[in-house]
Amino acid sequence: METKNVIRAIERLAALDSSGLRGRDFLLTWDKTEEQIRGVLAAAEILKDLRDAGLSPRIFDSGLAVSIFRDKSTRTRFSFLSAANLLGLAVQDLDETKSQIAHGETVRETANMLSFLTEVIGIRDDMFLGQGHTYMLQVAEAVREGHREGVLPALPTVINLQCDLDHPTQSLADLLHLARHFGGLDRLAGKKLAMSWAYSPSYGKPLSVPQGIIALMTRFGMNVVLAHPLGYNLLPEVERQAAAFAAQSGGSFSKSSSMEEAFEGADVVYPKSWAPYQVMERRTLLLQKGDSQGLDSLEKECLERNRRFSDWECSESLMARTRDALYMHCLPADISTVSCERGEVAASVFERFRLATYREAGYKPYLIAAMIALSKLENPAGTLRKLLRTAVRRAP
Amino acid sequence: METKNVIRAIERLAALDSSGLRGRDFLLTWDKTEEQIRGVLAAAEILKDLRDAGLSPRIFDSGLAVSIFRDKSTRTRFSFLSAANLLGLAVQDLDETKSQIAHGETVRETANMLSFLTEVIGIRDDMFLGQGHTYMLQVAEAVREGHREGVLPALPTVINLQCDLDHPTQSLADLLHLARHFGGLDRLAGKKLAMSWAYSPSYGKPLSVPQGIIALMTRFGMNVVLAHPLGYNLLPEVERQAAAFAAQSGGSFSKSSSMEEAFEGADVVYPKSWAPYQVMERRTLLLQKGDSQGLDSLEKECLERNRRFSDWECSESLMARTRDALYMHCLPADISTVSCERGEVAASVFERFRLATYREAGYKPYLIAAMIALSKLENPAGTLRKLLRTAVRRAP
Amino acid sequence: METKNVIRAIERLAALDSSGLRGRDFLLTWDKTEEQIRGVLAAAEILKDLRDAGLSPRIFDSGLAVSIFRDKSTRTRFSFLSAANLLGLAVQDLDETKSQIAHGETVRETANMLSFLTEVIGIRDDMFLGQGHTYMLQVAEAVREGHREGVLPALPTVINLQCDLDHPTQSLADLLHLARHFGGLDRLAGKKLAMSWAYSPSYGKPLSVPQGIIALMTRFGMNVVLAHPLGYNLLPEVERQAAAFAAQSGGSFSKSSSMEEAFEGADVVYPKSWAPYQVMERRTLLLQKGDSQGLDSLEKECLERNRRFSDWECSESLMARTRDALYMHCLPADISTVSCERGEVAASVFERFRLATYREAGYKPYLIAAMIALSKLENPAGTLRKLLRTAVRRAP
Repeated sequence: METKNVIRAIERLAALDSSGLRGRDFLLTWDKTEEQIRGVLAAAEILKDLRDAGLSPRIFDSGLAVSIFRDKSTRTRFSFLSAANLLGLAVQDLDETKSQIAHGETVRETANMLSFLTEVIGIRDDMFLGQGHTYMLQVAEAVREGHREGVLPALPTVINLQCDLDHPTQSLADLLHLARHFGGLDRLAGKKLAMSWAYSPSYGKPLSVPQGIIALMTRFGMNVVLAHPLGYNLLPEVERQAAAFAAQSGGSFSKSSSMEEAFEGADVVYPKSWAPYQVMERRTLLLQKGDSQGLDSLEKECLERNRRFSDWECSESLMARTRDALYMHCLPADISTVSCERGEVAASVFERFRLATYREAGYKPYLIAAMIALSKLENPAGTLRKLLRTAVRRAP
Repeated sequence: METKNVIRAIERLAALDSSGLRGRDFLLTWDKTEEQIRGVLAAAEILKDLRDAGLSPRIFDSGLAVSIFRDKSTRTRFSFLSAANLLGLAVQDLDETKSQIAHGETVRETANMLSFLTEVIGIRDDMFLGQGHTYMLQVAEAVREGHREGVLPALPTVINLQCDLDHPTQSLADLLHLARHFGGLDRLAGKKLAMSWAYSPSYGKPLSVPQGIIALMTRFGMNVVLAHPLGYNLLPEVERQAAAFAAQSGGSFSKSSSMEEAFEGADVVYPKSWAPYQVMERRTLLLQKGDSQGLDSLEKECLERNRRFSDWECSESLMARTRDALYMHCLPADISTVSCERGEVAASVFERFRLATYREAGYKPYLIAAMIALSKLENPAGTLRKLLRTAVRRAP
Repeated sequence: METKNVIRAIERLAALDSSGLRGRDFLLTWDKTEEQIRGVLAAAEILKDLRDAGLSPRIFDSGLAVSIFRDKSTRTRFSFLSAANLLGLAVQDLDETKSQIAHGETVRETANMLSFLTEVIGIRDDMFLGQGHTYMLQVAEAVREGHREGVLPALPTVINLQCDLDHPTQSLADLLHLARHFGGLDRLAGKKLAMSWAYSPSYGKPLSVPQGIIALMTRFGMNVVLAHPLGYNLLPEVERQAAAFAAQSGGSFSKSSSMEEAFEGADVVYPKSWAPYQVMERRTLLLQKGDSQGLDSLEKECLERNRRFSDWECSESLMARTRDALYMHCLPADISTVSCERGEVAASVFERFRLATYREAGYKPYLIAAMIALSKLENPAGTLRKLLRTAVRRAP
């Protein structure tokens, strides 16, 4: 192992004030300071370096990490699991169909009942606009009360594994990927990133990824262009947040209704489908009313509208307009001729960046582990230094 | 940590003869001696104190705890999981729909196939009268044979996570809650506890909680009153057991058909709905025959009968008749105007005791861990003393 | 513990060249050398002896073992789990219904997404002829690419938990059972083993067990007779492989269409139902086309054909023709009058060998653990020697 690199990374972490993360949940990146974000990234890199060097960064002897997935998931599920395991926690998924939640339990009660020996609660709830984030706040408030009132011996950290607003474990993995690609966080300033809508033969994909990207990358001096066809807006407050961050960081945030324009001279492109927030609002209301006919006609209407923009595909000719841009995606991508007839990205473009997107995804377990560690450790740099010194091997 | 308290608790445990728990299953509290019950409570308190002090009471380096849930469960599922994790065991749920049990396996065979490296089997099977306890005995006998005949290197302990007769992990958590509330097990003598039926808009709730309560609290000198409308009887043999225990302990066991009378001057009230055992017997027969029409009409008949007793609600005016009683519930409760229009308890009463019921539930993981530990350890007090001395931190 | 036995077993392991297992998957026994097979068996025995002696053979401090079960399973599921737990790995099952595999992910992508901190991937995929083994090869190739290209820090070992060709964890457990029964692997030469088809009231049972048996036991000098009614053939290439192994080992491989003949003078009998490979091929095509009418008529045709051979039952009179043979089965067996009216084996025969079949199954966790260990350890004998010397207790 390049121990020197790890020691340097620990020094970097020690110099950052990430103390505000201790005892706090991780729900939205825009609620965190830039130093805290840098702290999470530094800790993630250290944990990855330790693991790559075959050393165990276990900080728990026992304890639970509870996951609540209200939507299907492979990579986030395994990332959360891997992060918890790396630190010494056992994961238990709350399968709501096997619980007594239907028997009149309140969120407040369930949250405490799950948490008697729980250190972390990871939640994915991204289907209904306005609900995922609210649910996470309710869980967080419930366990905070439980801890204050002597019900819970430890305060579980609530981690957002994707809500209707943000997808912080994804956007931070993306940020670390960018930092490694360009040689450091400080090299991102001035780079152009095109966060672009792209065509998909499905509809209703959540907004949290593009929202997370524009509200995070603008903090590091990047020139972020958000491109989408007319009417495919993100939540206005998140766009305002991105603009404010760009103004502070010396970057920029602009909008375009042309994929070509957004890709022109870009250093990074992130082409990905989503549904307009107005559609997500209508969908949420219809789902709440159980109006399946309304849902069907909404889907029909949206797919028809989508089809008008089927040329929003990350093609080779579009890539040729960029400055040899890095292609990014949160996966799984809709790959033309591979996973669908026509989708978000041309097969040759995706194949060229396929392994890069895998590596991008591969940072997620370490970011989640870093979020957990920084919410628990009084002196993270000190603890990591000690782990490096004692050097328990993780595997033969 | 108040190490002195833990040391004292360990001395208390050392003075109790709980050796009869070693190598034995935990199915019914009334099969255990009073000293054994006191031993389980003492061990649970010590484990809780260690955990609250941030020390790890891990006694296993590896091994499995298998859970079999034949009914939905949140708190018992997570309690079992937490207990196993605290001691160093990994939990695997047997999902009967994913197993080959349907392919002609016998209980005897499955029990062994699950148990090659298993230390504990926790079972919830409370739906059919006369079946849950029988099933647990079959599993216990099967693994005992397997161990005797060299199939299994260790004898798994079978733990009743709720059957048709008893719910020992619940009733012992309730007993510990009472002991902590009144300042010790020895302060319970002479206290009046009202175990009362209460109205619920559902039907078919198991009898194991009220049965577990009357057969346990009568052993500690309490004056237990069982109240229910005419016809909502518990199993006669359990009532007889409660009466016998009361006679031995200097407490009392009486019955009443008035909630008011039961609450009068009570120190503790436990209002909770259940179905009469005669109904459970009829339901079991109908379920076995797959008679869905019969089940529908039984449900209709029972809900109609229930409605005649919708005034059996733990209201503020009833609470006013008590001696400032402690309200208890195994959760989830049917809370009037919250989880249903009218239910077991008034919202204001429940809200006042809400956090207390969470704490009550919070003892369950430690009681399960204590049951496991005492079934395995040759010298529990010695092992716990050693854990305290070596003092491995459980978490940062 | 008989430490001396373990030390001798470790010396035996040290003398075998099993280095070719390191960094390799375990998919088919016939891809492995005889020394490697002997190495796996020796390691399994050592791990079992350590565990039986109460010592912990944990070699991992953290890490995941992922299981993918595309068919129902009890004993293999718990065996994989037990093996992983014994070595210090946490198991996560990939529930394909809860993942985004339906959302256009490729096998290549999913395999990497599961594996960021994964040491082992166990797969059962035995339903479709020609597909299970192919799927395992795809997963193995995907993670090999991911590891080579810096996506995965460690190369996960893919372990075949039953495919359409082989069932190596079963056949090796069977081989160890035979070795223990007859007093050593070297005592198997010259023994007659009857691998016989037997009647079952169901159809479509996989071929992997009989194929695994004939292709493994022929390597140890056994005289293997494969018996089945006309038309119930195994895959021709596996039969050829068995014949080639027999020729090398000095054993024999022959076929018979009479159960009586096969049992005559047998030392071991393995009566078990399966579907002809031609039927499995037709079934695979019908399943792929979603032709449920075709499937129904195929089932009808096959069950009718099966019925013509309902006298292929391992009865007492057949057992009387053997040389006091050992009865073997992979479980669950179709036991006449117990799990079905008429099945593979008479109740009295099965009951006499019931505990022996449980012990046979009980070797599986140790064989899986041995496969994992030998795929990871640079110097298995050295590591095991060290484990024995440091002697961490696994349980109180």
